[in-house]
Amino acid sequence: MTDIAGYTFDQQLAQSPVSTAELDRLLSTLLWTDDDSAALARAGAVLEPRIEEVLDVWYGYVGSLPHLVASFNGADGRPSGAYLAAVRNRFGQWIRDLCTRPWDQTWLNYQHEIARRHTDAMGDTDHITSDQTHVPLRYLIAFIWPITATVRPFLATGSDPADLDAMHTAWFKAVTLTVCLWSQPYDPSRW
Amino acid sequence: MTDIAGYTFDQQLAQSPVSTAELDRLLSTLLWTDDDSAALARAGAVLEPRIEEVLDVWYGYVGSLPHLVASFNGADGRPSGAYLAAVRNRFGQWIRDLCTRPWDQTWLNYQHEIARRHTDAMGDTDHITSDQTHVPLRYLIAFIWPITATVRPFLATGSDPADLDAMHTAWFKAVTLTVCLWSQPYDPSRW
Repeated sequence: MTDIAGYTFDQQLAQSPVSTAELDRLLSTLLWTDDDSAALARAGAVLEPRIEEVLDVWYGYVGSLPHLVASFNGADGRPSGAYLAAVRNRFGQWIRDLCTRPWDQTWLNYQHEIARRHTDAMGDTDHITSDQTHVPLRYLIAFIWPITATVRPFLATGSDPADLDAMHTAWFKAVTLTVCLWSQPYDPSRW
Repeated sequence: MTDIAGYTFDQQLAQSPVSTAELDRLLSTLLWTDDDSAALARAGAVLEPRIEEVLDVWYGYVGSLPHLVASFNGADGRPSGAYLAAVRNRFGQWIRDLCTRPWDQTWLNYQHEIARRHTDAMGDTDHITSDQTHVPLRYLIAFIWPITATVRPFLATGSDPADLDAMHTAWFKAVTLTVCLWSQPYDPSRW
């Protein structure tokens, strides 16, 4: 994984302001169960060989909407191919990490690092000077729907509809959890 | 509807900072279609006679989690029955409005009024002095999952699985849209 530029999960990171105790409260809010954990692991195994295809769908979607692709602008106010490519690799790795890493303080620390990169540190990781200062919170939240819905066809490889539903429910919850964590820097005092 | 205390949809409200042009961008982000509009209207018709049952499920869920029910605290730091009851009626009306009202500037204005009541105006509507100052943003976002998932059984009244999926997809998108709108006051400059 170390060949992904800017992927610093396994390096020393600042402590997230989100504790594992708060994570537990978020998981209870999402009615997270051991069955969800098992289903998310199965989803990760199904998605692993198809991550590039998933990213093709997501990049097609983002690229089709000017107000979304603007988050990848360079200094000239136009989408930067280099920025899009650099983020793409880490976006794919986010799928892997979400489905396979333990959700511990280290994982929370890296989620906070990603959140920081969407706000105060926008563009720094890829040494991009952007005309944007942040990913708008409203689109980060809205992404829950497309990122959830577009994955279902990729999960639908088996013949068991109940297993598909279980994997997709776990994925929906995990995506929602991610957005909860990534929203922290937008309003730390009311998060 | 005027018998719902604090329900001021049809009164003169402050203009939402969210314009209908921005609403259109959010709807495109959610890949909202005319089919979704029709499916949401059908969902509204199915849910109308069962709103109290839906609210029973939601209140059972919120009541079971101390960190959620805390948003209904009175000044003594304990959940206020009067506060819970007053919000319940408006919560049910939110279902009706979401499924049946046109999504125009008036609707946006009332969504912003609700958002304000979750933040700067917490408790004012019901003349409650709460020990809480806001609904935490993270739980507002996390609610997308339970509020989406728990409605599916109520929509499953017909014999057409495709229609159930269409209604549920429209509901999921509409709930996500609501949370996008309600998140505005948390960080207006990066919303």
